[in-house]
Amino acid sequence: MVPAVHWKLCGLAAIAVTLSLEGLFLFLRRRRPLREVLFFPAPVTCTEQLLSPGMRCPCPLSHTDSALARLMRRLLGARRTLELCVFTFSCPPLARAVLLLHRRGVRVRVITDSDYMAAAGSQIGALRQAGEESVCGLVAEGYQGIEVRHSQASGFMHHKFVVLDKELVITGSMNWTMQAIQTNRENLLITDDSVCVRAYSGEFEHLWEEYDPATYEFFPEKD
Amino acid sequence: MVPAVHWKLCGLAAIAVTLSLEGLFLFLRRRRPLREVLFFPAPVTCTEQLLSPGMRCPCPLSHTDSALARLMRRLLGARRTLELCVFTFSCPPLARAVLLLHRRGVRVRVITDSDYMAAAGSQIGALRQAGEESVCGLVAEGYQGIEVRHSQASGFMHHKFVVLDKELVITGSMNWTMQAIQTNRENLLITDDSVCVRAYSGEFEHLWEEYDPATYEFFPEKD
Repeated sequence: MVPAVHWKLCGLAAIAVTLSLEGLFLFLRRRRPLREVLFFPAPVTCTEQLLSPGMRCPCPLSHTDSALARLMRRLLGARRTLELCVFTFSCPPLARAVLLLHRRGVRVRVITDSDYMAAAGSQIGALRQAGEESVCGLVAEGYQGIEVRHSQASGFMHHKFVVLDKELVITGSMNWTMQAIQTNRENLLITDDSVCVRAYSGEFEHLWEEYDPATYEFFPEKD
Repeated sequence: MVPAVHWKLCGLAAIAVTLSLEGLFLFLRRRRPLREVLFFPAPVTCTEQLLSPGMRCPCPLSHTDSALARLMRRLLGARRTLELCVFTFSCPPLARAVLLLHRRGVRVRVITDSDYMAAAGSQIGALRQAGEESVCGLVAEGYQGIEVRHSQASGFMHHKFVVLDKELVITGSMNWTMQAIQTNRENLLITDDSVCVRAYSGEFEHLWEEYDPATYEFFPEKD
């Protein structure tokens, strides 16, 4: 005959073991949010292999990793949506990455600044015209241009952020220009923290509505 | 006489209870990192009460909360160090906040861009001269000017971040100008995530050394 105290101890031990395993499981399961910081200028490296997977690029540029390559890998990881909100966009490799995503069926939306979108070297026109012609060496056929909206009011649309798949945000000081990447001192913070993603995603949707061309006021009445 | 199996169960129960409590402690202790996102333009509000605590400001501006007020509250929370790395700095209320911190004994260091530090309205000169004269309406006596270093190479020192007490970083698209705050579309991300703080702090120290005036090359040799 097993004494009652024996059974009680057995029960207590079983409960305690279950609790400790659950605690351990919760502790191990808590996922560390992604946070990566990129600093520029980045060394000039070839990003051709990222844009044309499987191709061995014979160019004389270095094929090592760089901040630009890491940024491009993050961008090219988008599977469903890409929301880009950038003041100036004149960097051809980044334009090719965005066009490649568009071609893969990712829904790309771009917001930019009205004063700078037609500046020399701007890639905004190329994004809009994707599908009509060969852009940046990428043969782009049979697909619609990328949706672009721009600021209307005074003041700059000075953001430089991008939201990928509503799961990842990349933000910082860097415009999407070759000078920013190769010459300036710049930073980009990459995170999948849900609070940050929600905030930037909300700002994008807010501006997307505000800059809807259906509501343009070409000759706003003066106060 | 207590049977041996009894003692064994007691021991097992004690270990399991200890483990479960430890697991619970670890799970509860994990602090959520701070992450706050500010968007601009901010409504024009009075920040006088933040700069002169205890004073009731009678000015006609709104005294409600704003993104600028939240930024200033974060800045004024610094107790030991403030490392500011900003492309353009011409916003008088933010200059007053930095001068106030300097006056309170916080070690302030500033890195800025050489092309823009002498632009119209720049506050960089006022920071450097703090202690010599009244700056921005703040009577500043008996303390040394703030340490400022600037870029030397080509390309812009285009960062816009600040590290507080080596515990908090504020980064984003926003230069410290009135136009950025009141007119542009801008964002700032505030976090105390240790990975981010370490990265930005490291970049600051790296640039601080690189821009040491003792190593200036006034007439660098051409390649």
